[in-house]
Amino acid sequence: MRCEVVAVGTELLLGQIVDTNSAWIGEHLALAGIDSLFQTKVGDNQARMVLAIREALARSDAVVVCGGLGPTQDDITREAIAEVMNVPLRRDADMVEAIRAFFGARGREMADNNARQADIPVGATFIPQKRGTAPGLICPVGHKVVYAVPGVPHEMKEMMERAVLPDLRSRSGEQAVILSRTLRTWGLAESTLAEMISARVDTQSNPTIAFLASGIEGIKVRLTAKATDEATARELLSAEEAELRSILGDLIFGVDDETMEDAVAALLKAHGLTLGVAESLTGGLVGARLTEAAGATEFFRGSIVAYDSQVKFDLLGVAEGPVVSEEAACAMAEAACKVLGADVGISVTGVAGPDEQDGKPVGTVYMGTTVDGDTQCAHARLPGQRDQVRQFACISLLDLLRRRLLARELPANA
Amino acid sequence: MRCEVVAVGTELLLGQIVDTNSAWIGEHLALAGIDSLFQTKVGDNQARMVLAIREALARSDAVVVCGGLGPTQDDITREAIAEVMNVPLRRDADMVEAIRAFFGARGREMADNNARQADIPVGATFIPQKRGTAPGLICPVGHKVVYAVPGVPHEMKEMMERAVLPDLRSRSGEQAVILSRTLRTWGLAESTLAEMISARVDTQSNPTIAFLASGIEGIKVRLTAKATDEATARELLSAEEAELRSILGDLIFGVDDETMEDAVAALLKAHGLTLGVAESLTGGLVGARLTEAAGATEFFRGSIVAYDSQVKFDLLGVAEGPVVSEEAACAMAEAACKVLGADVGISVTGVAGPDEQDGKPVGTVYMGTTVDGDTQCAHARLPGQRDQVRQFACISLLDLLRRRLLARELPANA
Repeated sequence: MRCEVVAVGTELLLGQIVDTNSAWIGEHLALAGIDSLFQTKVGDNQARMVLAIREALARSDAVVVCGGLGPTQDDITREAIAEVMNVPLRRDADMVEAIRAFFGARGREMADNNARQADIPVGATFIPQKRGTAPGLICPVGHKVVYAVPGVPHEMKEMMERAVLPDLRSRSGEQAVILSRTLRTWGLAESTLAEMISARVDTQSNPTIAFLASGIEGIKVRLTAKATDEATARELLSAEEAELRSILGDLIFGVDDETMEDAVAALLKAHGLTLGVAESLTGGLVGARLTEAAGATEFFRGSIVAYDSQVKFDLLGVAEGPVVSEEAACAMAEAACKVLGADVGISVTGVAGPDEQDGKPVGTVYMGTTVDGDTQCAHARLPGQRDQVRQFACISLLDLLRRRLLARELPANA
Repeated sequence: MRCEVVAVGTELLLGQIVDTNSAWIGEHLALAGIDSLFQTKVGDNQARMVLAIREALARSDAVVVCGGLGPTQDDITREAIAEVMNVPLRRDADMVEAIRAFFGARGREMADNNARQADIPVGATFIPQKRGTAPGLICPVGHKVVYAVPGVPHEMKEMMERAVLPDLRSRSGEQAVILSRTLRTWGLAESTLAEMISARVDTQSNPTIAFLASGIEGIKVRLTAKATDEATARELLSAEEAELRSILGDLIFGVDDETMEDAVAALLKAHGLTLGVAESLTGGLVGARLTEAAGATEFFRGSIVAYDSQVKFDLLGVAEGPVVSEEAACAMAEAACKVLGADVGISVTGVAGPDEQDGKPVGTVYMGTTVDGDTQCAHARLPGQRDQVRQFACISLLDLLRRRLLARELPANA
């Protein structure tokens, strides 16, 4: 089964918005076992939209048209699909009322324009909205099908998962359930990781094993299992995950959407510990990452961003001298505990560039961790330019803390 | 003149990488006065690449193929274009030596694979590389043309600007120089901004005036001028910029790539002032943004991320009580000066969500600025969810500081 994506919007062609929707849809089609061999962007022009949809339909079994379902005059996906189907549009009175009710529930009146969103090509069916006003469409064209979904990413994703992907799966006659799980690793090059698990990769069949390099977020190992039912697919994934964990151990820091800061947060909460940070070249990134998710307030005390050396001396008690050093990192981690009243302290000092500092090359970082009063220091030479060095320093430091917490005994009440 | 973009790479279809190249190319084609009406993604498959290029060529005058110029066996853009041209590939001995020299200069030996990058369809010409190993291609097909550029973004951009866009412009017979300038504003809704400059927009001709909403970075006003030479185009832009500045004044914080933190940094340096930050809900984002660019060390002392209320009380001398308040913001800004030894202090405290705090709804922020010992406080109710509130809080605070510095007399020696 083949399904193409046609992303609609002149702003996409002009580069005012980057089309991330097609990438998301492509990823989820692949996970559903459906090939997506072409993806097209086209502007808000009916003749060209019709051409793009027709060409896609000629090459594939199904087409997802993304965007152009809004209420304004340049939202003409409904009209374009009707032309492809060679049928008129009809306005659905029930859908007009549903849209009116959406506004009413928010204490607002529906603009006349919005009634256009209740238009549907004769022979098509609506996909009801759960998050906005524009319903999606399922439009049969001979034995093929065109779907229309909104361009607003969270509306699109919800509708794809609820209606379009299941419909595609049932059309493909694919009875199997396909599930995937991503193991996230940090600290190894892709080639080293591949070597470590080569025995598993070489004999893979179900689940399949794929590597995804994710830059500053490490290397992901994606398992994809196919089975007659969900429970069996999950069992296959869990069995392979166990095999890989027995080889990779704590190189795996998270699963699926779990970030490094999520992993650290979960460990700190489990151990009932609070955290203080002292950071230099990262300028506040460590604190910013740790507070991205709600609930950081349970463990995060704060961060001292000591960018200027004098602040390190005065506020953190670092001894006057070179500040890109093991001594400075240790003093900073200990001060993070003391000054911020935290159980655990972490620190990073180093050279983000573009110029070297204290005779140390760009990418040099020293990272301190103080856990249970014991301070340790690690040293690294990170690759890349300023931004990359700062990002790598951030995740490297969090990973060090993660490893120290993993090695710590959990409290009895945890 | 019409030019399409074909982005090549199975990883693009699978959503492992988002295709940002097409958006960049589309933007720069538009600035060059060239229409891009379709953009296509296709995998590393020769038959499908040939189909995509042929379809694009049938609809348009030119096609930019992006990606697939690497040294490995799945990099087959050269082969696909040769098939479209109906000519064989030849290996160019001089280009092999140029690629070998690239590796030699880095003390490395060229792998045999890399010689493939010296293959060229008969009748095409190379675009030499300035940053990597894969040369680009200019490939005539009848009276039309196919360009090949690398998929690595910085290599692609350099090659587009140096070779492809000028070649397209000369083919289009467009003698005019087209230049654009973007004025970046903060603090107004698009509709309000549009109303303020409606007299200019309604009578626009050359330069044209367009609005681009950029989310947390504010609203951009883009001027595009067309003239027989660059100097005249620049004069047209400067004249319109002056008109708009006379209306918008300090709502404009930057031009082109200048960010809010760039604007603040330039003002601090001009005034010879150092800066300290005390931040809460932003978790370190204010410091992180201020240190994104090199040279922050000239003015940035550091930031106290006082996430926990107790840290605000103990370290910043905030009076015990509600911390989402004008009093807390003022105390924090003053403490940022004192604790960090800075001339100027700024602070932000508020509710990022998801839950309300101190009886204040999500999005409530108080921002303090201490300049020349005078502390002022502003209050805002920011829209959106946690991440957006944090980002808006960050740029809003920097904008407040910018306005206070603009109002300050420059030192005599500046």
